Amino acid sequence: MFALKKIVLTLLFCTTLAAAQSQLVELTVYSPSLKGNLLGDPADQNVVVYLPDAYKKEPQRRFPVLYFLHGYSDTTPRMEAGKQFQKWMDALIASASAQPMIIVLPNGLNKYYGAFYANSSTTGNWDDYIARDVVSHIDKNYRTLESPGKRGFAGHSMGGYGALTLAFRHAEVFGSVYAMSPCCTALVGDLGPSNSAWERIGQLQSPDEVSQALKSGQFFVAALSAMCAALAPDPQSKILGDAPFYVEDRQVKTNASAASRIAVSMPANMVDSSLPNIARLDGIFIEFGAQDEFSHIPLGAQELSRELSQAGIPHTLEIYEGNHGNRVEQRISERMLPWMSRQLNSAK
Amino acid sequence: MFALKKIVLTLLFCTTLAAAQSQLVELTVYSPSLKGNLLGDPADQNVVVYLPDAYKKEPQRRFPVLYFLHGYSDTTPRMEAGKQFQKWMDALIASASAQPMIIVLPNGLNKYYGAFYANSSTTGNWDDYIARDVVSHIDKNYRTLESPGKRGFAGHSMGGYGALTLAFRHAEVFGSVYAMSPCCTALVGDLGPSNSAWERIGQLQSPDEVSQALKSGQFFVAALSAMCAALAPDPQSKILGDAPFYVEDRQVKTNASAASRIAVSMPANMVDSSLPNIARLDGIFIEFGAQDEFSHIPLGAQELSRELSQAGIPHTLEIYEGNHGNRVEQRISERMLPWMSRQLNSAK
Amino acid sequence: MFALKKIVLTLLFCTTLAAAQSQLVELTVYSPSLKGNLLGDPADQNVVVYLPDAYKKEPQRRFPVLYFLHGYSDTTPRMEAGKQFQKWMDALIASASAQPMIIVLPNGLNKYYGAFYANSSTTGNWDDYIARDVVSHIDKNYRTLESPGKRGFAGHSMGGYGALTLAFRHAEVFGSVYAMSPCCTALVGDLGPSNSAWERIGQLQSPDEVSQALKSGQFFVAALSAMCAALAPDPQSKILGDAPFYVEDRQVKTNASAASRIAVSMPANMVDSSLPNIARLDGIFIEFGAQDEFSHIPLGAQELSRELSQAGIPHTLEIYEGNHGNRVEQRISERMLPWMSRQLNSAK
Amino acid sequence: MFALKKIVLTLLFCTTLAAAQSQLVELTVYSPSLKGNLLGDPADQNVVVYLPDAYKKEPQRRFPVLYFLHGYSDTTPRMEAGKQFQKWMDALIASASAQPMIIVLPNGLNKYYGAFYANSSTTGNWDDYIARDVVSHIDKNYRTLESPGKRGFAGHSMGGYGALTLAFRHAEVFGSVYAMSPCCTALVGDLGPSNSAWERIGQLQSPDEVSQALKSGQFFVAALSAMCAALAPDPQSKILGDAPFYVEDRQVKTNASAASRIAVSMPANMVDSSLPNIARLDGIFIEFGAQDEFSHIPLGAQELSRELSQAGIPHTLEIYEGNHGNRVEQRISERMLPWMSRQLNSAK
Repeated sequence: MFALKKIVLTLLFCTTLAAAQSQLVELTVYSPSLKGNLLGDPADQNVVVYLPDAYKKEPQRRFPVLYFLHGYSDTTPRMEAGKQFQKWMDALIASASAQPMIIVLPNGLNKYYGAFYANSSTTGNWDDYIARDVVSHIDKNYRTLESPGKRGFAGHSMGGYGALTLAFRHAEVFGSVYAMSPCCTALVGDLGPSNSAWERIGQLQSPDEVSQALKSGQFFVAALSAMCAALAPDPQSKILGDAPFYVEDRQVKTNASAASRIAVSMPANMVDSSLPNIARLDGIFIEFGAQDEFSHIPLGAQELSRELSQAGIPHTLEIYEGNHGNRVEQRISERMLPWMSRQLNSAK
Repeated sequence: MFALKKIVLTLLFCTTLAAAQSQLVELTVYSPSLKGNLLGDPADQNVVVYLPDAYKKEPQRRFPVLYFLHGYSDTTPRMEAGKQFQKWMDALIASASAQPMIIVLPNGLNKYYGAFYANSSTTGNWDDYIARDVVSHIDKNYRTLESPGKRGFAGHSMGGYGALTLAFRHAEVFGSVYAMSPCCTALVGDLGPSNSAWERIGQLQSPDEVSQALKSGQFFVAALSAMCAALAPDPQSKILGDAPFYVEDRQVKTNASAASRIAVSMPANMVDSSLPNIARLDGIFIEFGAQDEFSHIPLGAQELSRELSQAGIPHTLEIYEGNHGNRVEQRISERMLPWMSRQLNSAK
Repeated sequence: MFALKKIVLTLLFCTTLAAAQSQLVELTVYSPSLKGNLLGDPADQNVVVYLPDAYKKEPQRRFPVLYFLHGYSDTTPRMEAGKQFQKWMDALIASASAQPMIIVLPNGLNKYYGAFYANSSTTGNWDDYIARDVVSHIDKNYRTLESPGKRGFAGHSMGGYGALTLAFRHAEVFGSVYAMSPCCTALVGDLGPSNSAWERIGQLQSPDEVSQALKSGQFFVAALSAMCAALAPDPQSKILGDAPFYVEDRQVKTNASAASRIAVSMPANMVDSSLPNIARLDGIFIEFGAQDEFSHIPLGAQELSRELSQAGIPHTLEIYEGNHGNRVEQRISERMLPWMSRQLNSAK
Repeated sequence: MFALKKIVLTLLFCTTLAAAQSQLVELTVYSPSLKGNLLGDPADQNVVVYLPDAYKKEPQRRFPVLYFLHGYSDTTPRMEAGKQFQKWMDALIASASAQPMIIVLPNGLNKYYGAFYANSSTTGNWDDYIARDVVSHIDKNYRTLESPGKRGFAGHSMGGYGALTLAFRHAEVFGSVYAMSPCCTALVGDLGPSNSAWERIGQLQSPDEVSQALKSGQFFVAALSAMCAALAPDPQSKILGDAPFYVEDRQVKTNASAASRIAVSMPANMVDSSLPNIARLDGIFIEFGAQDEFSHIPLGAQELSRELSQAGIPHTLEIYEGNHGNRVEQRISERMLPWMSRQLNSAK
């Protein structure tokens, strides 16, 4: 179905502790899914892999795999993120709070500072890239456990969105999902018509102006443009995507076609149509901070929880003290990784 | 695309008042859409048409048309219903509270006492029957105004469901919709797993047992079976449709595939995917009684209203003092007909 | 119970049309309820009264009264607003779309550009002012119908909040309420912790800085400060009210006591506790624009509608095409005034 | 403030294992709060106490305390329930999945098969009984840690209701609360007007008929009557409480005063008014089964979660596979007890 053109597997980094000889590996995975995207982003994408100490010490053993997706405009090098995961996981394994697992950190940054991990006719097929190309590459090159129950998804903000949508679409690939402050779970709050960024977005003349907007501090102008290009791609649009809201005669109006395309790609609105898939998942965990600055995040997470409950889908919704960013590391190390370890180890 | 095999146009009834010489006409419309349904219901279906006094008096004038859909197990002869509409409309026109319009009363009763006005591979394509066959027949045989804005939809309970779903799917045909205590707008409340009828439905052995259930007073057993056959048709199922919930080991479980098929056919869940259509409608009015006995009706109507609001779709939600049935006639004559008249007359 | 110290009744304006000799009267009503407020706002407040043509022509006839409350920072002179109401009402009466009624336009502007029509230990008892002092003054000096069913309340934005809270608290005084884009019906959306104005509000040093904030374009800083002083008054606070949210260590935190005081003063949260009152009202109409810029307004209105529905309280929720401000005049003249006229005339 | 008239402390049961010498003690606590209730229930109430092995072995050590409240019509002797808790806790402590704590099992059964742990002028002050009399008795007679953070509340169904309301009212006494399938968190679903039991309740002639209703299988008739007597007590009512809904002229109507009293006693509606208290709690966990047969339980739990989120209160909402009763033991032993142990041990 697809081919890996070349695999540059570079062993970059190898910590040496008495107890833990875990490894971080940096790869480049070529993806036919991304080739030819209209932003000119490369088809060769960086991936960082954490291999636990046991991976080296037990050469016959196969391991579950956690895929972790980063957030919008998160330009931290994946290798830096990898070092944090290495520190957390080594400590959790040492204290028996988690079992050894492989952790994969793909890239989701594009020229718009975020691809939303979605298949888009303009920005590339990032869903395929993750769910097929990266997973296939990892399974071919590492000793993984290949059943869906042994693969987990997690992510923060845009990465939480990605984790949810990929899990909802690919229950044949993934079994458990942990969404941290997931963005874009419903077209509500500051994603709605009241966000003044929509007016500015209507004035953008080229893709370059999207990335410039981010650099000049117009977060919402860039982030919402990136979302439109990912979820309502349109090669004719100046920013390669259609906006759901625009301003005409000083009034906000709705582009119903774009709004529809975007809304049906949001997790709360995917529940009913994806129910057969979702019902096969082993576990769903959704969390956000009680003081999240993005008003759509609590609203959307609760709408998603409500839809899941109505459909009889077990899941956990957890609201913690904190805002969008100030507890992320603590939540990953103290909540997400132990939860995911239990899920992947107890799954068949 | 389809043919009317025969048209039996019988002039049945002709009131003679000094002022109002309105007419009621009973037709049989043959529908290829219904032919071959597995319940053995006839492809020739009864339709009653109200023609206002002005229809006769002004032979060049064309009129807007209201299609009114009845509720589940409503075995009142359409002609009896027609007489009520005639009485109300004649009075409203006389007092200038409504403008003359044609009113069409199709049948939605099948062997299961309700077809839900949906296209079903087992019970027949009732959506096509109404939106194509009946509308086409009326337009060919009467002096109608044929633009969507001049066609309205209303209905009560199952008919409210039909009015909403047909309007949401066919904005190219209809312009305004008035849903009275619409059933089945979301898979919640007494449509959910807590309804004990699901256990009995799982034990039914044949379509005949569905209609027997209604006759023996098991309303929910029959109504939910009819809903399943309409919205999750399955020729292999003993009742010709798959139930979203069933009982196993004394616990209610979810058939995710059936639940998904049914849920996505419900108006609250159709909003995002049908947004381009819905945005073209001229008006949406949803009402229910504050004391409705069916718990899913207030819950679903509010969920539908919330989804419409999030999508920026103008509409009215009205809660009146009353239950599912005790105000229907008053609401039709005092609220629905005047509202619909204003809508159809102000539309382009 | 209270005394009107002086009544300055000035006949200011008298239109002379052939058909309609309606009048506008400007009064000053002294209110003991406002005396001694810590903002130094006067106890003498301006009120404009519209008297329909019939008031003069039928000197024995008594009339129902509509009280209309303006929005935050609406500095239009009441007399100018009165002229608009005169124009609309004269036309509606002329076309028989409304029956004659008296319309009273009180002032709700204070030094903070908005008193929220609430009783506050710091900014004055504006609820008492309206519901007791103004109503009593009007009843003493004009030929009014004095039963609750003959008094209506309407208002826009902050005035919609005022209309709802006054009606919910004083069913012994008012019978019908029409809330137009009511603000502050629930502590959600842009009233919540995600509004960046809370940080600036925490830095304000004096009441003067609140009014300066409005003049310098910081709408939310001023409006939310005014809301806090009205709903969580605190003489020790630098702005005379406690904020529900504040920033510490760069994180938004909640002042639970202030949040609680404010939340319980919001209509959606008043439904259960005020149910015996609310159940006595003759009619409740709530509307907002589908494109309202204030995210809490649609969210709050729907929460209010949901609470009313759960409690079995009849009401209408209408969402129209428009934003917070661009349809106000049209809605007043085409929807609110005719609805209110029907309500007040059909009430006992 | 209150006096314990007599204390009958009977050592009933003492398991002897090699490792665990935990104890179960059965007491009778006299409560002035219950004296003189109109149902004639005794002021002497049975309480069972679990003392962990460490309680005997470490005679200087003080322990945190979990109070667990049973559900409606749960006639299992408290001692039988105690044996289960003993088995679970001994095993959890042995596997280091929980730390030693005292567990107290008060009685909440009255003549109506459930007191809802509420203060009622007709059925007795059960809130005071638990939060003051029982807690005080336990602290006086056992080596407890007496700070609020060291006291936890849990309960199932009616007991979940009790745990939430007592914690929301008494943050000066309790620090953590775990509500399992809590009933009555909002006046929705099958607690609303659509429940046909309200008609029968309106026909009951005496308190005896309430208990007879339960014995004859009319669960809702008895349970809702008990709720009314607890939350809307009325000595003049034939069942000692006012019903929120009744049937007149074959239509369900609302008794607004009763509905208001009941609604404001429900956790979702207590959030705003109790916010200062709730904000002091250390932890809130709410769970229910995805297939719960009582439709108000998922609806109410989600409404409670939404209210808590809006108020910025951290908490967890967990939906598990199961119905109202079939996973209770598993959830207590695998989820509730370990969670509570972590909470009480990490609290200050």
